[in-house]
Amino acid sequence: MKRVMLVVAYDGTNYHGWQIQQNGNSIEAELNKALTDLCEVPICVSGASRTDTGVHALMNLAVFDTDMRMPGEKFSYALNTRLPWDIRVVKSVEVESDFHPRYAGTIKTYEYRIYNADFPNPLRRLYTFFDYGQFNVEAMNEAAKYLIGEHDFKSFCSVNTDVETTVREIVDAKVFRDGSEIVISVSGKGFLYNMVRIIAGTLIEIGKGKRQVSEVPNILADTNRYSAGPTAPPMGLTLVKYEFLDEKYKELVAL
Amino acid sequence: MKRVMLVVAYDGTNYHGWQIQQNGNSIEAELNKALTDLCEVPICVSGASRTDTGVHALMNLAVFDTDMRMPGEKFSYALNTRLPWDIRVVKSVEVESDFHPRYAGTIKTYEYRIYNADFPNPLRRLYTFFDYGQFNVEAMNEAAKYLIGEHDFKSFCSVNTDVETTVREIVDAKVFRDGSEIVISVSGKGFLYNMVRIIAGTLIEIGKGKRQVSEVPNILADTNRYSAGPTAPPMGLTLVKYEFLDEKYKELVAL
Repeated sequence: MKRVMLVVAYDGTNYHGWQIQQNGNSIEAELNKALTDLCEVPICVSGASRTDTGVHALMNLAVFDTDMRMPGEKFSYALNTRLPWDIRVVKSVEVESDFHPRYAGTIKTYEYRIYNADFPNPLRRLYTFFDYGQFNVEAMNEAAKYLIGEHDFKSFCSVNTDVETTVREIVDAKVFRDGSEIVISVSGKGFLYNMVRIIAGTLIEIGKGKRQVSEVPNILADTNRYSAGPTAPPMGLTLVKYEFLDEKYKELVAL
Repeated sequence: MKRVMLVVAYDGTNYHGWQIQQNGNSIEAELNKALTDLCEVPICVSGASRTDTGVHALMNLAVFDTDMRMPGEKFSYALNTRLPWDIRVVKSVEVESDFHPRYAGTIKTYEYRIYNADFPNPLRRLYTFFDYGQFNVEAMNEAAKYLIGEHDFKSFCSVNTDVETTVREIVDAKVFRDGSEIVISVSGKGFLYNMVRIIAGTLIEIGKGKRQVSEVPNILADTNRYSAGPTAPPMGLTLVKYEFLDEKYKELVAL
């Protein structure tokens, strides 16, 4: 028996998120189907991040156990021939039998992209949230800096989420322009449900002058979802990167 | 009666190209439907470029005539509420009643994009042609330079195309890397059927060392479709820009 880790990229447009759903397809279900077909025994992956409906990933991680003698690095090729084109295994690698990326200590980076022009760009409609308004990107970036560090992010978490603690550590947060797009980049050791989309929704209101930069510390202190801005739409969000804190694991996600 | 020019951007993935088809939807048909709905009389646009199935545009042009009193610049907003999200009218402007972009003297720029990495990127699959091979981009760029000028491009035209002359003028052609993508950019006063995709197919073979840079003048001189490379797949191609040669028209396509 060996454990293999998959580095998975996907366009979330046509999926009901990562996690297997009763009604509707999911990234996880597609991976299980491809693996089961390949290995000829039922196989279930265990993912590192559950992305929502319509959210994309350039790098999500999952592990599975198998008796197959195929070398770890060959699984990517064998799975890609069995997967739809909007899901690609961009790397596969054998890991220690008790290794799981969810517990290995990682920094995840999400990007939320706003397409900010007079009209939407049809070629970017699936990967950005369109807004033609005027944005003060400097203010958004300044506001983002308040999020860095260990905080109780309860205000930035969907209500009714059942978690032990709403304290999380954000290691970097910044907002910058990239051509016609405004990028909100947030890196952290862990995230609450909808946290990045609520951060994006709040920073968008700050960018448009509906809120002040100075409100952010108060929003955090309120520990109340209704103090923060709305949850920004899913298509603008992409899980772009995983980094392992432990030096010996860094190579696992090198592409 | 006045004439209005539309600047149209679209994701060609779900369309059978620009031109109205018996079987299958088209950009032209969607524009006619939206205009007919808006103006309450049958209206047909006349386009500047007929893009193929699966080919995209950031800027294609079309004109139509109408009695409606709506100011030219308002049509974009009124049409966008009636168009699917993969088609956007990014500008509308009243023009002289006998103006047509097809005859006004323009330079069109096409980009052909190759996604060149070990694995495809699901978020770019609809807008690039994936190839994991090694490319000599310098050689491709050198080869592209041979295409600049007025030449008989018969070798770069689909057979059975019925045109008066296969002589066209390319004003610029270059190949460069943009992150994980290789961009083939070709600007010209006019193009033959499939010309840019055959140029792309030929430059791809040069990039991979299957052909030499020095073959390009011979391919041109042969005036034979079978001397050139294959027609590259449509999804990598985007009509990105129109420029008017006449100073007085330049403002029409300023976004």
